[in-house]
Amino acid sequence: MTAFTDELRRVGEQIGDFLCSDTFPETIHPAALGEAVRDYPCRGGKRIRPALVMWACELFGGDREQAIPAAAAIEIYHNWTLVHDDIIDRDDLRRGKLSTHASLRNHAEKNLKATPEQAAAFGESFAILAGDIQQGWAVERLASVADHGVSPGLALELVRAMQTKLNRELISGEAQDVEMELLDSSFVSEADVMNMINGKTGAIMEFALHCGAAIAKGAYEPKSPDFRALSRYAANLAAAFQLQDDMLGVFGDAKVFGKPVCSDFQEAKPTMLYLEAVRRLPADRRPELDSFLRLPHYSDADVAAICALLTGCGAADAVRESIINLSASARAALLPLPANQWRGMLDTLVEHMLVRSV
Amino acid sequence: MTAFTDELRRVGEQIGDFLCSDTFPETIHPAALGEAVRDYPCRGGKRIRPALVMWACELFGGDREQAIPAAAAIEIYHNWTLVHDDIIDRDDLRRGKLSTHASLRNHAEKNLKATPEQAAAFGESFAILAGDIQQGWAVERLASVADHGVSPGLALELVRAMQTKLNRELISGEAQDVEMELLDSSFVSEADVMNMINGKTGAIMEFALHCGAAIAKGAYEPKSPDFRALSRYAANLAAAFQLQDDMLGVFGDAKVFGKPVCSDFQEAKPTMLYLEAVRRLPADRRPELDSFLRLPHYSDADVAAICALLTGCGAADAVRESIINLSASARAALLPLPANQWRGMLDTLVEHMLVRSV
Repeated sequence: MTAFTDELRRVGEQIGDFLCSDTFPETIHPAALGEAVRDYPCRGGKRIRPALVMWACELFGGDREQAIPAAAAIEIYHNWTLVHDDIIDRDDLRRGKLSTHASLRNHAEKNLKATPEQAAAFGESFAILAGDIQQGWAVERLASVADHGVSPGLALELVRAMQTKLNRELISGEAQDVEMELLDSSFVSEADVMNMINGKTGAIMEFALHCGAAIAKGAYEPKSPDFRALSRYAANLAAAFQLQDDMLGVFGDAKVFGKPVCSDFQEAKPTMLYLEAVRRLPADRRPELDSFLRLPHYSDADVAAICALLTGCGAADAVRESIINLSASARAALLPLPANQWRGMLDTLVEHMLVRSV
Repeated sequence: MTAFTDELRRVGEQIGDFLCSDTFPETIHPAALGEAVRDYPCRGGKRIRPALVMWACELFGGDREQAIPAAAAIEIYHNWTLVHDDIIDRDDLRRGKLSTHASLRNHAEKNLKATPEQAAAFGESFAILAGDIQQGWAVERLASVADHGVSPGLALELVRAMQTKLNRELISGEAQDVEMELLDSSFVSEADVMNMINGKTGAIMEFALHCGAAIAKGAYEPKSPDFRALSRYAANLAAAFQLQDDMLGVFGDAKVFGKPVCSDFQEAKPTMLYLEAVRRLPADRRPELDSFLRLPHYSDADVAAICALLTGCGAADAVRESIINLSASARAALLPLPANQWRGMLDTLVEHMLVRSV
């Protein structure tokens, strides 16, 4: 695990240095918008998606240096979706700090003497625009692999895949998530939720791996066996990752997790954890579970009661078991790929996720 | 003028057919999101931006067919910015129909049984996501010129210019517009407004012309004399266009114009027309002008009083004169370019804009 954590730290430093020395955001006016564009990408985070690009590139004998701009692009891309998600989900926190729209709202109140209502509108508007510019920045960084020895034709293919397949899958996933909040959970199946998870989390992991592999191989071949194996790995890993996230949202420590506790309950999101509980609880205890949806605030007693309900009916254990099974499938998907240290990194990454114990 | 209007109609039909038969939006889930993605691009409109692509391509002897995907891309790009602008400006109308977020709000109320508050949030969220997918669709369509004989290297250069220079200028323009609403108009100069106009309107016209020229020439050379002449034409034309728009917003017919009357006054936007009036009105009449800012509703009497104020102080005539001067500068910028019928189209376009008399 030491080699793995050292390597993940190395990726984090390389990508952090690359992103924070990128001068693109400085060319944006007003300055507050430029700062918002740089903010999330420079906050750090786990940098797992860029690592997938680098490791998939090295896995197939590619040049790590060539993959760095693509890895940075994936990180920027991920972050623009977070900026817009945070507006949509009305989350004021991201990685333990203020989210983009909340931070811009403060800027408007302090520096532009806006009323609270004006400041809220300003924060949302600027955050929409910051995400829009970030999407363009991600495209530019991915395209810039052509400045580092990748053929313009391949760079163009990767840009097109990002702006069609990835955009469609990821944004559709987010849209399904938004729509599900309005649907009675009786109309939402576990398949719907798994499909939504694959869009929201799996699509970008798959694309990150495909980018790295394409740069190494000099060709983007999503239907070839190697690319398909990476897709299976990504889908299983993403599902495990998201289920873990759902668990942490209830059982985790908000300070470590960086999001308000029980925010999924507050937004009445039908997570797998919630659907498992609905399926397992006797009908007369369902109202008790649903009484915890959409509360304005979650006290320690509320959280303890939710945890007891989810544990008592077996839902928490069922989700823990799913995480274990999905993780095993992710690791199995790697077996046909070249057996080198980079496949080892991808393998250990699966384990690494389970370290965040719940 | 007949040849011109026939040609503009021809562009409109070509682009309309191309966009409405594009299957990309059909691949998006949920279906309501896919429909929102296709909505604005298929509503028609003047199609002036795609015409700029086609005519600049023909101007330099290029193949019109090669330019069609690029022209469609510019139209899609323009429309994603409108979708996000309409959220930011809280405009419920666009081209005489419901704006994207308003239409999606209705969808949520009717088909998802959402409460008015939930429906409003849903409308905004889906409209943010629809614009996000449209931005990707625009990139894909521009990149697809590589499927029609344009080199991948040039296609990549155009994509990069769109996602950096155009994104930065256009979105910065929109951000300045948002910020100006919060600033006392005493702190906003006419130069600030002209700069904002060039970002919001000029940058995309310039890019449209540059795309067409680059496809014809097989090279994107923004610093060459031909490209610079097109930039000057675009900047002057855009400014004339925007001033005309400001005038129509007050003196025009809301039904023809497709936006609520006096929406700039409602949003307290410091337009050139407003700044001219501020500069010309005696200090003791300024409160009368400002009493019309941010009204919840504009009666016929309000509109008549605003028109009388703007006309009486000479601001309306001053803006009309600016439009005439800017138009003359736009036409003069064309003189160094090849003297063919396509230069004639660009020349007549300037005149065509003045036909929308105010």
